[in-house]
Amino acid sequence: MRPVVLVLTGAEGLGTRLRASLGAVPASLRLHRFPDGETRVRIEGDLSGRAVILLASLDRPDAKLVPLLFAAATARELGARSVGLVAPYLPYMRQDLAFHRGESVGARHFAGILSASVDWLLTVDPHLHRVRRLDELFTVPAEAVHAAPAIAAWIRAEVRDPLVLGPDQESEQWVEAVARGADAPWAVLTKHRHGDRKVELTLPDLGVPAGRRPVLVDDIISTGATMRQAVALLRAAGSPAPWCVAVHAVFAGDAETELRRAGAREVVTSNTLPHPTNRLDVLPALVEGVRGILARAPAARMAGCP
Amino acid sequence: MRPVVLVLTGAEGLGTRLRASLGAVPASLRLHRFPDGETRVRIEGDLSGRAVILLASLDRPDAKLVPLLFAAATARELGARSVGLVAPYLPYMRQDLAFHRGESVGARHFAGILSASVDWLLTVDPHLHRVRRLDELFTVPAEAVHAAPAIAAWIRAEVRDPLVLGPDQESEQWVEAVARGADAPWAVLTKHRHGDRKVELTLPDLGVPAGRRPVLVDDIISTGATMRQAVALLRAAGSPAPWCVAVHAVFAGDAETELRRAGAREVVTSNTLPHPTNRLDVLPALVEGVRGILARAPAARMAGCP
Repeated sequence: MRPVVLVLTGAEGLGTRLRASLGAVPASLRLHRFPDGETRVRIEGDLSGRAVILLASLDRPDAKLVPLLFAAATARELGARSVGLVAPYLPYMRQDLAFHRGESVGARHFAGILSASVDWLLTVDPHLHRVRRLDELFTVPAEAVHAAPAIAAWIRAEVRDPLVLGPDQESEQWVEAVARGADAPWAVLTKHRHGDRKVELTLPDLGVPAGRRPVLVDDIISTGATMRQAVALLRAAGSPAPWCVAVHAVFAGDAETELRRAGAREVVTSNTLPHPTNRLDVLPALVEGVRGILARAPAARMAGCP
Repeated sequence: MRPVVLVLTGAEGLGTRLRASLGAVPASLRLHRFPDGETRVRIEGDLSGRAVILLASLDRPDAKLVPLLFAAATARELGARSVGLVAPYLPYMRQDLAFHRGESVGARHFAGILSASVDWLLTVDPHLHRVRRLDELFTVPAEAVHAAPAIAAWIRAEVRDPLVLGPDQESEQWVEAVARGADAPWAVLTKHRHGDRKVELTLPDLGVPAGRRPVLVDDIISTGATMRQAVALLRAAGSPAPWCVAVHAVFAGDAETELRRAGAREVVTSNTLPHPTNRLDVLPALVEGVRGILARAPAARMAGCP
């Protein structure tokens, strides 16, 4: 039975293509915002007995949660066999530890909220650090697909003699996979963080070998502080202007402009979040991921209960 | 064991007094907003083994849900015996029916989200219409206290020869209780709604008897369209300028200014939502409500499961 794809605000571009690739039946989701700030969702289409896929662009996540949870609840009431969530960017994953007693652990708490509402989750390159696997956070099947092949292909096509650089140790996991795919050497810089916006980086001992053109690769550009400092460090060391490549174009405030101003040659992102810098397409990876999950056909269950 | 009161943004005024009235142990909750729009909650205080009461001002509810759910999850992790929610204004209650197929039913869905997160709920005069009781919506104990005694006392003190008027049939439940408490005659107007902002009212046949001073009473002033039209109708019928009294000061946009401009004598609300028009104090009713719930001591349970 053909699935249904329902697209939340912000994910329209990927939504149209995901629907076509999966041969989904026509259906639509519309949001109405009342004058008092309350939200109403309306779903049109035949959901009865079908696998329903919610596609949501979850940067700036807080105000997007109610529409998402209402959409999931409404889909169930319309007879969906299962309700899954494709969130190409999964927020809150960087809050994976209470750094001080009494702090919320967003990664665990947000995953708990989603697990109580949907039957499965698919994302692209979640920022996993101290938590190593999504299933440590989610009580429903939660899978990730990867942008590294798309980044590697882009580097092969666009950059001669690349040196793939990670701006910090956490980026090592993406950088190594990308460099291997691009058949390029790689290294990572060393980062010390002082607060939300202040970071300090140091170059690896080797520096940038002559003739190599640096490509900085990270999973997320948010404030861009890390990436910006990496660019400045490279330029100060006499390196050519680096490309800045990231999976998730979160871009808080003027992050993108400031990155160019710091001396980036080009800022390149994937379309997990819509942004003018999108050059890398995660749709094929998402389609393969969804097909795999639907083929294993998780049944609907009572949300949140074991 | 003394309880803990944690106050979410917007409820600080009631929070300080609720904490004092309940003899709660000192504790605090702070929100941190990251540059990428994510939220972190931090709770300080000894929650271990204690009944924790979250107090939240839930108008404009969507962006407030994540901080609330994170606070509840964090309180549990800090060893709270139970986590209850005092939401003096309970949003989404007007969305109690899918008027068209495929619409979310906010009252049910929002109650479902809260039921999965807290052990009990206390509110003031929820807008119940087609749904008659909170326990049709919530799977955890959910109770309401009432502002009618405070409104009636205010009328007795401030208005000579009052006529208590409800702006529509739905308000009959509040109006009758208020009028009885104020020992005053009462009536309701008849409303026909055309969309979010457009309503049409008609006066009851009796009109406003000579010498009576009209006091319009409703549960919520949101856009104020209903109340504004009631004021205009009364003024057109030659009535003195009416008082406009409401429990919940939601006030979308310029609602309050427009109400005064339409000819209201004074706009009076309770402090379920902080607003310059607050004249009626729901704290005593809330304190009594919380004491009753804590005396019955609902045990913590696995959230969302029967």
